[in-house]
Amino acid sequence: MIQPERGFATEEFRGRVQAAQSLMEHAGLAALLLTTEPEVRYFSGFLTRFWESPTRPWFLIVPAIGDPVAVIPAIGAALMARGWIRDIRTWRAPDLDDDGVSLLAQTLRELVGSDGVVGMPMGHESHLRMPLADYHRLAESLGSVKLQDDADIMRRLRMVKSEAEISKIRRACSIANRAFDRVPEIATEGQALEKVFRHFQMLCLEEGADWVPYLAGAAEPGGYSDVISPASDRPMERGDILMLDTGLIWDGYFCDFDRNYAVGEAGSETKAGYAKLIEAVEAARHIARPGATAADLFHEMDRILTGGAGGSDTGRLGHGLGMQLTEWPSLIADDHTVLEMGMVLTLEPGVEVAPGRILVHEENIVIREAGCEMLSDPAPGDLPILGNVT
Amino acid sequence: MIQPERGFATEEFRGRVQAAQSLMEHAGLAALLLTTEPEVRYFSGFLTRFWESPTRPWFLIVPAIGDPVAVIPAIGAALMARGWIRDIRTWRAPDLDDDGVSLLAQTLRELVGSDGVVGMPMGHESHLRMPLADYHRLAESLGSVKLQDDADIMRRLRMVKSEAEISKIRRACSIANRAFDRVPEIATEGQALEKVFRHFQMLCLEEGADWVPYLAGAAEPGGYSDVISPASDRPMERGDILMLDTGLIWDGYFCDFDRNYAVGEAGSETKAGYAKLIEAVEAARHIARPGATAADLFHEMDRILTGGAGGSDTGRLGHGLGMQLTEWPSLIADDHTVLEMGMVLTLEPGVEVAPGRILVHEENIVIREAGCEMLSDPAPGDLPILGNVT
Repeated sequence: MIQPERGFATEEFRGRVQAAQSLMEHAGLAALLLTTEPEVRYFSGFLTRFWESPTRPWFLIVPAIGDPVAVIPAIGAALMARGWIRDIRTWRAPDLDDDGVSLLAQTLRELVGSDGVVGMPMGHESHLRMPLADYHRLAESLGSVKLQDDADIMRRLRMVKSEAEISKIRRACSIANRAFDRVPEIATEGQALEKVFRHFQMLCLEEGADWVPYLAGAAEPGGYSDVISPASDRPMERGDILMLDTGLIWDGYFCDFDRNYAVGEAGSETKAGYAKLIEAVEAARHIARPGATAADLFHEMDRILTGGAGGSDTGRLGHGLGMQLTEWPSLIADDHTVLEMGMVLTLEPGVEVAPGRILVHEENIVIREAGCEMLSDPAPGDLPILGNVT
Repeated sequence: MIQPERGFATEEFRGRVQAAQSLMEHAGLAALLLTTEPEVRYFSGFLTRFWESPTRPWFLIVPAIGDPVAVIPAIGAALMARGWIRDIRTWRAPDLDDDGVSLLAQTLRELVGSDGVVGMPMGHESHLRMPLADYHRLAESLGSVKLQDDADIMRRLRMVKSEAEISKIRRACSIANRAFDRVPEIATEGQALEKVFRHFQMLCLEEGADWVPYLAGAAEPGGYSDVISPASDRPMERGDILMLDTGLIWDGYFCDFDRNYAVGEAGSETKAGYAKLIEAVEAARHIARPGATAADLFHEMDRILTGGAGGSDTGRLGHGLGMQLTEWPSLIADDHTVLEMGMVLTLEPGVEVAPGRILVHEENIVIREAGCEMLSDPAPGDLPILGNVT
C-alpha cells in the first residue's frame, strides 16, 4: 500500500472553497465566518495543536467570491503563511481591549459590503470558539451586516470526504489496528487498567500515531457499566471484559474504533452478546451504500440488538468521522441523512449482557459506489481471550 | 514526597460552590450556567476524555443557594453519579429536535424563578460550548430570565488553586521533568523531528502521564522560526536547536513547560540568547509574590529580553495554568491582575537570536506567601548539548 503524504494539494483546498461558494450563492450568503479548529483547517490546512490553549480566537472568512482571508493572532502568521492562504491579517493577541474584533469587523465589511449576510455554523454539533461578549460586540459593530446560520453548508461539505482525506483516515485506522493487535503484550490479569491505558497509548505512538487525543475504555466482570470513564487503578481480574476505544490522529485525521478482550475467560452471556455485536456490524455493512440513510443503518443494527425496540437511552449506534472524533451524521432513528459516496462512518452497536453490564463494538467504514469499504480491520468473530495467566 | 491521590474530597467542591455563591450574591446572579469541560469539572469533578466529541452539549447550573444541578446527556449519567452531584437530569442525546434545551430552560426556571439573572462566562478566554442556535433558543424560551456575563466569577475562582490542585500540577510537572531528562535517549543527529515528537510523548506516558494533549516544538539551525507548527520529517542536523514544549496531564491537571537542546553544538549568539532566557526567568521568580502584578512580571522579563522595548508581536511572556494548558492571567503589559497565593503561572520568555530565529524558555511556578515555588525543575544554566555523534 502506498502511504499517503502529509498535507493536501492546493487544488483540494480550492475545490473545497468553490464547493462552499456554490452553496453560499444558493443560500444568499456573502461570506462564511469560521472560528473552530476543524472549520479553519478545512479551508486553510492550518494544522497545529496550539488550539489546546483557549486564550486566543482565530478567524477564517470564506467570501462568496475570491480566496479565504485569515484574521488571526500574530503568533500563527508564520505557520498560516506556509499554506496556500495569502491574505493573512494579524493582531497582537491577547489584547484585553480589542482581541481581534475590530480587525475582524473591518475585514468582513470590506469583503461583504455594507449589508451582506454572513453565515456561521450555528446548528447541532457546532460551537462558537470566541468569547460570547466579543460575538455580541462583533454583531453590533457590523451594523447592517447580518450574522446568521450557515444553512448547514459546513456540515454538508465536511460530511463527504475526498480520497486524500479517506487515505489519512485509513492510515489512522491501520495504526490503531496494529496497536490493538499488540494488546496481549500489555494487558494481563493483575495489571491496573490505568497502566493498560498508558501502555496502549504508547503502542499507538510506536505504531505511528502523531498523537492520541482520545482513549476510553473499561474492564469489568462480564461487561462494563460505562464507556466514557477514565481508567481506574483496579487490577484486572479473570473474567473481566477489557474494552479499549481509541481516537488517534495521523496528519489531522482520526480513526475511532474499539476492541474487546476477555481476561482469561468469558461467560456464555458475554460471548453471545459479543456475537450479536459482530452480527449487527455485518448487517449494517451489508446495507451501507449510497441512497441508504443513517436511520436505515440504525434500524438494521437495532433489529439485531433489541429486536427493534429503538435502542437505548445512552447512545447512538455510530456516527461520522474525520477531522473530529465524531462528525455528522448520527446513526439514530431520527437522522434521515442520505448516505453518499465518500462518507466515513463508525458502526457502533452496544448490547446489555446483564443488568448494568454492556458491551460496545465499533468499526470504521467508507461509503463506496456500490457498498462500503472497511477502514478498520474487522474484529475477530469470537471474543479474543487474553493469556490464561492465573 | 507523598503522591497526591486522584480526585478531590467533597469538601473541596463544596468550598468552591460556596465561594461562587458568595460572589454571585455580590453580583446579583441567581445562578451560573456552565457549558465547557473545565467549568463543569471545576464544580462537579466530572472527568472524561469524552468531551473530544463535539456532538453533545453538557450543562452544569450552580444556583445561588443549594447544590449544583447537572443537565447532561444520558450517556454521562453513570459517571456523573459517581461524584458528589446528586441532582442529575438527563436527556437522550443527540436529539435533533430538542438537544437538551427545553430541559435546561425548565431547570433554570425552577432554580431562579421567573425573573432571575443567570451568569455565563462571556469574557476573554471563555467559550460557549453549545450550538449558537440553541443558545438563542434558550434565551428566547427563558422569557424574563436573563442571561448575562458572569462578572468574571469563574475566572476569579479558577485563577487561585487549592493545595490539592497544586499537588496535581506538581505531579504533572515532575512527570515532564523526568521525560525531559531522558530526551538524550531519543533525540540524536539524523533523527526526524516527527519521530522525536512521537518518542517524547511515549516517554511522558512511560513516566506517568495520563495523556499528552499538547506537544509543540521545533528543531532548526541556531534557533527556530515558530513554536506552534507540527513536527516535520526533516532529520535533525548538527547545530540545530531542538525545543520541546509539553502540556501533559495527570488527573485532569496540566503542566506546561519546555526545554531546549543543541544538537552537537551551538553558536555563541544562541548560547547568549539562552543565557538571557535563564536570566529573565530568574528575575521574574525573584519578584513573583502576592501583590506584584502580571504586568510587573512581564516588564521584569522584557527589561532583560529587549531592554524594555515592550515585547514582540507574537506573544506574552507567560500565563496561568491548571485544568487548561493556558489560563488567566496573561503576562503582558496590559494585564494588571494582582498575584495571590495559590496562583500557578508559567514564566515564558522568548528572544530573537538572529533575524527570524527565536528561542523560547518556560518554567512553572506557584505563588506562595512570601515569594514563589518552582513546580518544574529549573532548566540548566547552560544550554544542554545532545551527544556529539557525527
